[in-house]
Amino acid sequence: MIETPYLLFLGDAPDQLAAKVAQGIKDWRPDYAVGQFRMEGCKADMGLADMSLQEAKAAGAKTLVIGVANRGGVISAAWKHVLAEALLAGFDLASGLHNLLKDEAELVEIAKAEGRMLHDVRVPSVKYPIANGRKRRGKRCLAVGTDCSVGKMYTALAMDAVMRERGMKASFRATGQTGILITGDGVPLDAVIADFMAGAVEWLTPDNDEDHWDLIEGQGSLFHASYSGVTMALVHGGQPDALILCHEPTRGHMRGLPDYSLPSLQELQEVSLTLARRVNPAVQVVGISVNTQHMSEKEAEDYLAGVEAEMGLPAVDPFRNGAGRLVDALAALD
Amino acid sequence: MIETPYLLFLGDAPDQLAAKVAQGIKDWRPDYAVGQFRMEGCKADMGLADMSLQEAKAAGAKTLVIGVANRGGVISAAWKHVLAEALLAGFDLASGLHNLLKDEAELVEIAKAEGRMLHDVRVPSVKYPIANGRKRRGKRCLAVGTDCSVGKMYTALAMDAVMRERGMKASFRATGQTGILITGDGVPLDAVIADFMAGAVEWLTPDNDEDHWDLIEGQGSLFHASYSGVTMALVHGGQPDALILCHEPTRGHMRGLPDYSLPSLQELQEVSLTLARRVNPAVQVVGISVNTQHMSEKEAEDYLAGVEAEMGLPAVDPFRNGAGRLVDALAALD
Repeated sequence: MIETPYLLFLGDAPDQLAAKVAQGIKDWRPDYAVGQFRMEGCKADMGLADMSLQEAKAAGAKTLVIGVANRGGVISAAWKHVLAEALLAGFDLASGLHNLLKDEAELVEIAKAEGRMLHDVRVPSVKYPIANGRKRRGKRCLAVGTDCSVGKMYTALAMDAVMRERGMKASFRATGQTGILITGDGVPLDAVIADFMAGAVEWLTPDNDEDHWDLIEGQGSLFHASYSGVTMALVHGGQPDALILCHEPTRGHMRGLPDYSLPSLQELQEVSLTLARRVNPAVQVVGISVNTQHMSEKEAEDYLAGVEAEMGLPAVDPFRNGAGRLVDALAALD
Repeated sequence: MIETPYLLFLGDAPDQLAAKVAQGIKDWRPDYAVGQFRMEGCKADMGLADMSLQEAKAAGAKTLVIGVANRGGVISAAWKHVLAEALLAGFDLASGLHNLLKDEAELVEIAKAEGRMLHDVRVPSVKYPIANGRKRRGKRCLAVGTDCSVGKMYTALAMDAVMRERGMKASFRATGQTGILITGDGVPLDAVIADFMAGAVEWLTPDNDEDHWDLIEGQGSLFHASYSGVTMALVHGGQPDALILCHEPTRGHMRGLPDYSLPSLQELQEVSLTLARRVNPAVQVVGISVNTQHMSEKEAEDYLAGVEAEMGLPAVDPFRNGAGRLVDALAALD
């Protein structure tokens, strides 16, 4: 668990896109972001107050979150200087970078001396159990996709936001490093040892109030030859009551697999339900989330109307239309 | 890759069952077993020549394989003495125990000084790639089960033996520690990091002659809430041309999951084919392997006849009937 609120470290981000972790925190957990820390030449801006470490500390920030992807896979000397200063100023550090904070001897030494935490969210920090498959109290919704990177995290976060607005009991459950940094907690599922994947998902979505919804961040796709095992563990470990189908209609082939076309939404629906029924016979597909970013407004509208007619389920792009209708569909299940 | 042949270490095995790894090597790779090493009080016997370390060395043994499950999860002082002696006598060591050889400082030190290898086959020693899903040459057969521990490894090994007898090109591909110790090579799939599971299976079953069959050891079950993700990676990474359905008809519930009943063979067939077609549209279920150890001969015969009629596929217990008819079915695919 990462202590909040955060100071968002944007470093020397070459553009806004490089700071997408910071953007995610700003968009979905604005209360967690007391300010931003930018180095010389930084081209990203979250529209937050620029703060020194001391100013952020005074404003209550507990953790410096690296909200930017670094260049070349190394933590630069310039960054390291700031990170060391932050530890000395009393901040914990959190990072989703491939190269780990805990592999930087100097940072480890300072953190130890100062009693600060280094959170490398790509690496599991918990000894997860083997899944037991027992029915848990509370409700769970899982986003499953026709492919990787079609908007599953965005969909779950958008639904979580609407549910909180409406006063429903909801928790976004992060299963990837961006989600973990946004919410401060979760399971880096793709880095978990095979035998413990489903157990990690059970651990992440424990017994809860009967009217509480876990919105589980999906990973991969049941149809993706590289990552389907991870998705399977989410379906069986997550014990979903509701599934949201996620899709990106303009994609020509599965991400990273040029020989594989995307499955249809019908195929995704059938396979997901068949597998999910094993752990929850009552599971239903309640809606469809389409990432229409590469379509015009008219194209998107027509496409969504077509899907809705064909599938008999609400179909929205949460970015264009909001997630309200997906939440309506969840609420109708209760 | 573990150097063969082996001296089988039976230690102080309390009974024959405790030495099931040694039994597997003796049964399936008798050429690899030059002799057995038994300590005082050992109640297991593989029917091999009892040898001292020196005798086994003279007979050509390269690796001392721990063929016995230890008590209490620790490598006893008595064992450790023998293992150290073996390293000094020029043997590598291989173990599938939970507690690792490489965590025993004394053994590590001797191995280093002597230039010997310590093989802990529960732990991956390879940096596996991400799966790429590309079609590979050669043929692959995967055993899938209605549950864990229903005879998938036994089935694949029995088919492998028949195919070798017949002069067919075949390789048993181990995915668990017992299989790895038996054959000297493989992937400990349940210990692989989630993102690399399918890639590990691709790595294990690379391009081969068009008439070569990989017989891939199955793991878990697509219907087992704890381990289905591992099985999914086998189905997608293995790119099977042929599936063998494995079943144990007397089991009352899924192994370790008292609330879950076993799926039917029809359900297993449908789900396995649906998922496997994603990576190989031509995949077929070619036969059924039933573990009838808890049935009388008459019961087994009737059961197998019933399954065969119902499924329209050859149904055998390889232990009682041999695997010949399953291999016939594979050969008919060519």
